[in-house]
Amino acid sequence: MGERVGEIERGREMEVAQVLHMNGGRGEKSYAQNSLVQRKVISITMRIAEEAITNIYCNTFPTSLAIADLGCSSGPNTLYAVSELVKVVDKVRRKLGHQSPEYQVLLNDLPGNDFNAIFKSLAGFQENLKKQMGDGFGPLFFSGVPGSFYGRLFLAKSLHFVHSSYSLMWLSRVPEGLEGNKGNIYMASTSPPSVLKAYYMQFQTDFTLFLKCRSEELVAGGRMVLTILGRRSEDPSSKECCYIWELLAEALNEMVLEGIIEEEKFDSFNIPQYTPSPFEVESQVKKEGSFTIDRLEVSHISWNAYDNEVHQSEAFEDDGYNVARCMRAVAEPLLVSHFGEAIIDEVFSKYGEIVASRMSKEKTEFVNVTVSLTRKG
Amino acid sequence: MGERVGEIERGREMEVAQVLHMNGGRGEKSYAQNSLVQRKVISITMRIAEEAITNIYCNTFPTSLAIADLGCSSGPNTLYAVSELVKVVDKVRRKLGHQSPEYQVLLNDLPGNDFNAIFKSLAGFQENLKKQMGDGFGPLFFSGVPGSFYGRLFLAKSLHFVHSSYSLMWLSRVPEGLEGNKGNIYMASTSPPSVLKAYYMQFQTDFTLFLKCRSEELVAGGRMVLTILGRRSEDPSSKECCYIWELLAEALNEMVLEGIIEEEKFDSFNIPQYTPSPFEVESQVKKEGSFTIDRLEVSHISWNAYDNEVHQSEAFEDDGYNVARCMRAVAEPLLVSHFGEAIIDEVFSKYGEIVASRMSKEKTEFVNVTVSLTRKG
Repeated sequence: MGERVGEIERGREMEVAQVLHMNGGRGEKSYAQNSLVQRKVISITMRIAEEAITNIYCNTFPTSLAIADLGCSSGPNTLYAVSELVKVVDKVRRKLGHQSPEYQVLLNDLPGNDFNAIFKSLAGFQENLKKQMGDGFGPLFFSGVPGSFYGRLFLAKSLHFVHSSYSLMWLSRVPEGLEGNKGNIYMASTSPPSVLKAYYMQFQTDFTLFLKCRSEELVAGGRMVLTILGRRSEDPSSKECCYIWELLAEALNEMVLEGIIEEEKFDSFNIPQYTPSPFEVESQVKKEGSFTIDRLEVSHISWNAYDNEVHQSEAFEDDGYNVARCMRAVAEPLLVSHFGEAIIDEVFSKYGEIVASRMSKEKTEFVNVTVSLTRKG
Repeated sequence: MGERVGEIERGREMEVAQVLHMNGGRGEKSYAQNSLVQRKVISITMRIAEEAITNIYCNTFPTSLAIADLGCSSGPNTLYAVSELVKVVDKVRRKLGHQSPEYQVLLNDLPGNDFNAIFKSLAGFQENLKKQMGDGFGPLFFSGVPGSFYGRLFLAKSLHFVHSSYSLMWLSRVPEGLEGNKGNIYMASTSPPSVLKAYYMQFQTDFTLFLKCRSEELVAGGRMVLTILGRRSEDPSSKECCYIWELLAEALNEMVLEGIIEEEKFDSFNIPQYTPSPFEVESQVKKEGSFTIDRLEVSHISWNAYDNEVHQSEAFEDDGYNVARCMRAVAEPLLVSHFGEAIIDEVFSKYGEIVASRMSKEKTEFVNVTVSLTRKG
């Protein structure tokens, strides 16, 4: 029996690992074209990552520096964090008169990620970076590492720095025991306590496994900076993290009422995500025990990342449309695998309208929890 | 002027690196479906690779073992050599009662290679291998490393073993100075000496750079086993290596006569390949100086790898068709980039007929040069 359950669980985990990926390619609906929120989040948390990588570099002056980006996706954000990090190290080593280390950049995401597109962009990226940085910089070696970060990905003690932004809220699987979550697709104010508990337990299991794996892969003193979509409140069904999915549930529910989606199909759909509070992140890190916490910070960003852009064209003035495009780039593969292709355009059209009407009435933002960690010696 | 030539040269090199790749996907014309020759070559030279990896493992008993496959392609051959090598090491370490090392498998090819397809196959591959090998095996970590092996790809002193089969005959670029090679697309009996010299010089430059880069990446005592499509004869225009391309030139030439291909277009097409003799390989290794030669062997395989298959279906009884399909999987991207898509079907249809008629009259085989090397201490 235990064996059997194990098999089912592995099956479920396998499924999320194979289904979950950002929309591929470079087209209108691609993640590459719709990931400005995620880029801005990397940008506003960058000083924390820069501080951490400067620290590990200056403590050890390694001849080679291995940097992993977990959940790298495919698009303009894929190499953004890494290039900023490498620039900071180069600035420091020049100031100190050191030779450049060799950089190993390890780009990880699930196997459904469009690695081919990344790989084709690397030659141009390298050339630009070399031009910017001048003589004496690098070399920089890239590799793609496909697989779930809820498992070992790298050799023991082979990493100096791990960066991950907007990836760790994704769970390894849809939690068990969500049968009572009728009318919802995520935690919501109407979710029974058993559902909230199931989600939290899955987060605890996954995040602990993540920390354990990384603790084996990082060198002693190695650093890790994680930014997770989260919340400030201790209430897991708080609007600040759940609202964006509640509105998607509304769109789907409308289509149930219109008879386009079967009610059963709707009820069995749940998003494999958990948006933790800083306290939940902290307590899990402490419980796992391999890392000390250097920083734990909360930031926020508007649902519509174009909000503060000065030169925005008219196309980007429709908040609802923008947010729907952004969420579509992230969630389309999950929805398609459950509901099929046919309903997708309508779902996101309805969703865009719903989002627009709410955004005009209230302040809507994503909350980001960033934690900076050091592997204990 | 020197600057300018440099730019053109970089342009040319860039072009081959971007154009050259085996046919992608899993369809009828894919390399994945048409690479039995290459698989058999890996198989007949495997004992040399096994001997070498056993040697490096038993000399150092590393806790982690990094194996790179250069020119891994995408298809059933991609993981074939690596899985055989890992099995051999596991057998030895069990016999000696050692714990398994962690394996780092680095799969390299040019950026046009279909890495996405490889990455999607890895979970199934890992599961199978674990089942076969039982408890205590591994773990095994994979990564994809896009880029030309005529440049550094890996961190200094990070590799224990390098394997490469049927890749190193590809040059980094079409050599300079082939203007006199009219009527041919490769070295041929009618090529002037200047053409043969230009090809050989490009091989020397490329192979030396390859050895130099690998010597930086391998640990002292690290091993490398390379199998290169080559020849026995010291004549670089010998039929044993050039005939297969001469027949393709015949097919193209027919189409020039029919007015389908412009003569100029035909004259400016040359295959960026060099098929060396064992002596040429040996002398280049000695000149470069970083490696000692443990073995240098020559083997051969029929143009039609299905020749000795007992259970071959009728579809595989047409030698010409099989060889044309195999060559198409390898050369189509090069031809398309020069001549365009439109002519391709006809080229390979003509080629298949020509090959069939010659194969019925003479013995046709590929010659393989395998060299086993040790990085000097």
